[in-house]
Amino acid sequence: MLYTRRVQFYDTDAQGIVHHSNYFRYFEEARGELLRGIGLPYSSIRERGYEVVLLEACCNFKKPLFYDEVVDIELLLEGVDRFTFSFVYRVSVEGELRAEGKTKHCMVKDGKIVSIPREVREKLASETKV
Amino acid sequence: MLYTRRVQFYDTDAQGIVHHSNYFRYFEEARGELLRGIGLPYSSIRERGYEVVLLEACCNFKKPLFYDEVVDIELLLEGVDRFTFSFVYRVSVEGELRAEGKTKHCMVKDGKIVSIPREVREKLASETKV
Amino acid sequence: MLYTRRVQFYDTDAQGIVHHSNYFRYFEEARGELLRGIGLPYSSIRERGYEVVLLEACCNFKKPLFYDEVVDIELLLEGVDRFTFSFVYRVSVEGELRAEGKTKHCMVKDGKIVSIPREVREKLASETKV
Amino acid sequence: MLYTRRVQFYDTDAQGIVHHSNYFRYFEEARGELLRGIGLPYSSIRERGYEVVLLEACCNFKKPLFYDEVVDIELLLEGVDRFTFSFVYRVSVEGELRAEGKTKHCMVKDGKIVSIPREVREKLASETKV
Repeated sequence: MLYTRRVQFYDTDAQGIVHHSNYFRYFEEARGELLRGIGLPYSSIRERGYEVVLLEACCNFKKPLFYDEVVDIELLLEGVDRFTFSFVYRVSVEGELRAEGKTKHCMVKDGKIVSIPREVREKLASETKV
Repeated sequence: MLYTRRVQFYDTDAQGIVHHSNYFRYFEEARGELLRGIGLPYSSIRERGYEVVLLEACCNFKKPLFYDEVVDIELLLEGVDRFTFSFVYRVSVEGELRAEGKTKHCMVKDGKIVSIPREVREKLASETKV
Repeated sequence: MLYTRRVQFYDTDAQGIVHHSNYFRYFEEARGELLRGIGLPYSSIRERGYEVVLLEACCNFKKPLFYDEVVDIELLLEGVDRFTFSFVYRVSVEGELRAEGKTKHCMVKDGKIVSIPREVREKLASETKV
Repeated sequence: MLYTRRVQFYDTDAQGIVHHSNYFRYFEEARGELLRGIGLPYSSIRERGYEVVLLEACCNFKKPLFYDEVVDIELLLEGVDRFTFSFVYRVSVEGELRAEGKTKHCMVKDGKIVSIPREVREKLASETKV
C-alpha cells in the first residue's frame, strides 16, 4: 500500500529536517490507512475491545526529509503469525529512498495478549508482502 | 509557583526556535507541578473519576525560545469560581520575558461538567494570585 | 478556505481525545494549505528570506475531537495591515462546531520585523474574510 | 549515565500509555544530558559547525509507561569508531524494565559526514560501556 503525506512545519526541528521521532508517526498514519483499506479501521478494532500494541519499532535514516516535501510511504506486510504481525516501510520522495522502517505488533484484549483474530490475519495476509 | 525546564531539541522547528504548539505543553507540565505541589497530583484527581478539561488556551509570543535554554514558567492563579479556574503563565529566560499565556479549565465527571470540588477550590485558592 | 484532515492516533492523549496542543498544529496545516492555494507556499516565502512568525495563538475548545474523526477546519482572514495579519479557524466534524481559534502573525527578514510585502498583503486580502 | 524524567500527560495517547514515538524523544533528552555531563553540550557542538545526525533508531517495548510515572533511562555507550557512535537505552520504572532502545549516529559538517572529532571520541569513550 502507498500512503502519501506532506511534511508539516511542526514535523521539523532546528536542523531544518523532519525530527526522527516523527517518522514513527508517519508509519502509524500509513498503518491506519492500510487497516482502513482492508476494511478493518483501527477504530472498529478498538470498538471490539482490542488494542494493537507495538512490540518493536526501528528506522534507518538514509537522507533527511525537508519541510513541504511530499513523502511516499510504501507499507508492506513482513509477516503475520499466531500472535504477531510486522510491517516494513519504505519512505521516499520523488522516487528517492530516504528511510526504511519496521514495526512489530501484537493484539491485546482485557489487558492480555491474544492470538490475532482470524479475520485480521486473513485480511492482513491479503496485503502485498515484502 | 515557578517551574523550570530546559528546551529539548525535539521542541524546536526549522525556524530554529521552539514551535509555538509546545508552549502549551510546557504550560501543562507547569500545571502538573502546581497540582502536585498543593497535594492534588492530577493522577489522583483522575483516580477519583474526574478529568480536568481545557476550555481556552492563549499565548502571546514576545521573543523566541532556543534550544538548550533554561526556561522559567511562573504560574499564577487567575481565578477560581464554581465551575472554572484559570491560570496565567509567564515564560522567561534569565529574567527576560519571552511569552505570556493563559488557560481556563473546568472539571468533568461521568462525562458531565461538575462544580469544582471544594477541596480543589480551596487548595487552588491558596496559590499565589495574579 | 476549507482544510480537512483525519485525527491520528498520536494526536490523542490519555483522556481519549485530541490533545489541545495539537489544534495549533492543525491550524498550521490549514495555513500551509491556504498559502499554497493563493500561490504563496510557505517554502517559497522562506526561500525569499522571510519567516512568518507567530505573535498570538488562542483556541476555545467546545467539544473534544476523537480518534479517526474527519475534521474540517474553516480558515478565514480576520485582517491584514501593514505589519500583521490574523486568521480565524472554525473546527468542526460533520457540521458540529468543536473549537474556534485565532492566530496573529508578522513577518521577519534578517531577524527584523518587516512590513508585509505588497504581494502577500494583496493575495491574503483576496481570501474570504470573517 | 542515568537520566530521570516524569511522564507528561501530552506524552500519552488514547491507549492511556506513552505513545511509542515519544520514547525516541526521551532518548534524545538522555543523550543531551550525557553530552552536557561530559562537557560537550550539543549546543556547543552545533556552535562549532557540527550536527549529530541519526542513522538508526530502534526500540523494544516490553511494558507500557503510564502518566505521571517517574522513568529512569540508563544510557550506555555501545561503541564509537571513526565515523559513528551508538548508544543503548534501558527504560525502567522503579527497577522494572519497560523498554530497551538503541541509536546510531554520525557527525556532519558543511553538509558532509566527517570523522568524529578526537575530543568527542575520547570523551564518549570515557562513558560506561554496554
